[in-house]
Amino acid sequence: MQPIESVRWTADQRAVRIIDQRRLPNEFVERDLTSLSEVCEAIRTLAVRGAPAIGVCGAMGLVVVAASLADKGRDDFLSQVRRCASEISATRPTAVNLSWALDRVVGRAEQTPGPSAVALDAMRQEATAILDEDRAMCLRIGEAGAELLANGARVLTHCNAGALATAGIGTALAPVYIAAAQGKNVRVLATETRPLLQGSRLTAWELTRAGIPVTVITDGAAASRMRAGEVDVCIVGADRVVANGDVANKVGTYALAVLARHHGLPFYVAMPSSTIDPTLPSGESITIEQRDPREVSTLGDRMVTAELAVVGNAAFDVTPASLITAFITDRGLVYPPYDFAGR
Amino acid sequence: MQPIESVRWTADQRAVRIIDQRRLPNEFVERDLTSLSEVCEAIRTLAVRGAPAIGVCGAMGLVVVAASLADKGRDDFLSQVRRCASEISATRPTAVNLSWALDRVVGRAEQTPGPSAVALDAMRQEATAILDEDRAMCLRIGEAGAELLANGARVLTHCNAGALATAGIGTALAPVYIAAAQGKNVRVLATETRPLLQGSRLTAWELTRAGIPVTVITDGAAASRMRAGEVDVCIVGADRVVANGDVANKVGTYALAVLARHHGLPFYVAMPSSTIDPTLPSGESITIEQRDPREVSTLGDRMVTAELAVVGNAAFDVTPASLITAFITDRGLVYPPYDFAGR
Repeated sequence: MQPIESVRWTADQRAVRIIDQRRLPNEFVERDLTSLSEVCEAIRTLAVRGAPAIGVCGAMGLVVVAASLADKGRDDFLSQVRRCASEISATRPTAVNLSWALDRVVGRAEQTPGPSAVALDAMRQEATAILDEDRAMCLRIGEAGAELLANGARVLTHCNAGALATAGIGTALAPVYIAAAQGKNVRVLATETRPLLQGSRLTAWELTRAGIPVTVITDGAAASRMRAGEVDVCIVGADRVVANGDVANKVGTYALAVLARHHGLPFYVAMPSSTIDPTLPSGESITIEQRDPREVSTLGDRMVTAELAVVGNAAFDVTPASLITAFITDRGLVYPPYDFAGR
Repeated sequence: MQPIESVRWTADQRAVRIIDQRRLPNEFVERDLTSLSEVCEAIRTLAVRGAPAIGVCGAMGLVVVAASLADKGRDDFLSQVRRCASEISATRPTAVNLSWALDRVVGRAEQTPGPSAVALDAMRQEATAILDEDRAMCLRIGEAGAELLANGARVLTHCNAGALATAGIGTALAPVYIAAAQGKNVRVLATETRPLLQGSRLTAWELTRAGIPVTVITDGAAASRMRAGEVDVCIVGADRVVANGDVANKVGTYALAVLARHHGLPFYVAMPSSTIDPTLPSGESITIEQRDPREVSTLGDRMVTAELAVVGNAAFDVTPASLITAFITDRGLVYPPYDFAGR
């Protein structure tokens, strides 16, 4: 089975090639992003999504855009690169990986003396490093997390924190892939994850493609599955982990953490170092993205919510560190007390 | 505002007139049920739904069908009535109201001496009594529950246990309607309730129609709303309440009960006496309806779940009595310890 590459360079490095995740599971379509508007639109509309993947895509996208500016003088070049980075960064406010990756690429240009073309080369090296590091971090997360999975383990996950959400084999699903590669039987219970059904559309797609058994349930059904003894361990991803270990992740994550605690189940958060935001002391300071209410109130073209009702669509929630058994990171398992102030 | 009548007789009592809830919120369509197949199909496909409403509809539907059999001899008539009742009862296994109401109508026929036409008249009286009692029970539930709602109360509910789910003003929503009629400001937070979106389609429709503010959220967003202090009280309905107070209700209810406990919020279950099943000792014995997986895996005609994934669609879950603050019933508030063995 060919591994999934959700974000990569085209052969000439003039475009970022992504899997258009809006078309899954029905169609496998790749798209090449070659302009600022294409990069922003792909991230905003979730053609590419998942905190690590949008970090990688943003960094590489900035390089693609910068290449068209390399005939400008250095100051003008850097100024325009910074403006483009801000525009890309603003597309999704909650995942820290995006601004982190853009800052790295912009910083590398600023620190590289010489004409614009030289700075551009350095930017491309930096973006490629971010891509390669992301793949390597996924593998290390997988190795660390696989230790937690016994043969026969039944893993509950939420949303998609798999290969589609990263440049590599995923974060929350990386331990599942590695455990399966080690010959363990592993099964996944995937919450469909309303409103955009990333669990049903994406997690189920990539796991079945890899031959790993997966059962899709509605978000509301996770509790009774836990009560019935059908879950051994919960593993989710993260969009931002702040200094005290509080976690922003797809809305519904917090509910699962409370439910896991109630049922005495371990609740793990898998994340690469790029997801740590040491600048925020606690989850209360995290900006939660409010997305278009029509993601909730319409199915396709059909309105499903009574028209006079208010509709809330916070895309993320915050899970307090106290509910997290451990973090599965590229540096190994991290147990409480948590201190991510030094990243 | 004309009150909603989700189940009623046509003027000539030859048909059961229902609101076709599959068409809401986009179209308000009433349908007249005149045959066994129409009654069964309406209940099975959720054209009429809600535990009390399907009890009333089943009872009245049985009378409509029996009317076409009244030219038969008494033994043949009763035998065919029993067969039709079994068929209607089998359409939805979890809500006890359906079998309870059918048993009442069949029992009345059996206990009424004389020819078939006389038994039929008695059956019609019994079904009408069930209809009238349901309306009266809803009012008493509303009066009992309204005491629990302060001015400004913010009520979280799940699925639809409103006027559309009963012949009257609902169960879980009855206290909201009565409190509003008493001049209190009351607001409702309605979970959309996957997979069939009864919260988004039905609860939001009937509340906005009554001028009561309602906000629709995904099921997964309830936890963060509780944590943010945006919920004062949870009220849900019930499909079956067994002897020890365990409750079967729409899948996702159990999750909300755990979350309410975690956040120190009261969790009430509103139900008429017809929802009590004194024959089962605890929730473990309740048959949970497994519905078509396509309710989860497709949106309209579009497949949203990866095709090789298994899809679970248990329609109900069981909330243990220990998580229920009190029952709001037609006989007033019932606090623990619960004993419904005597109904």
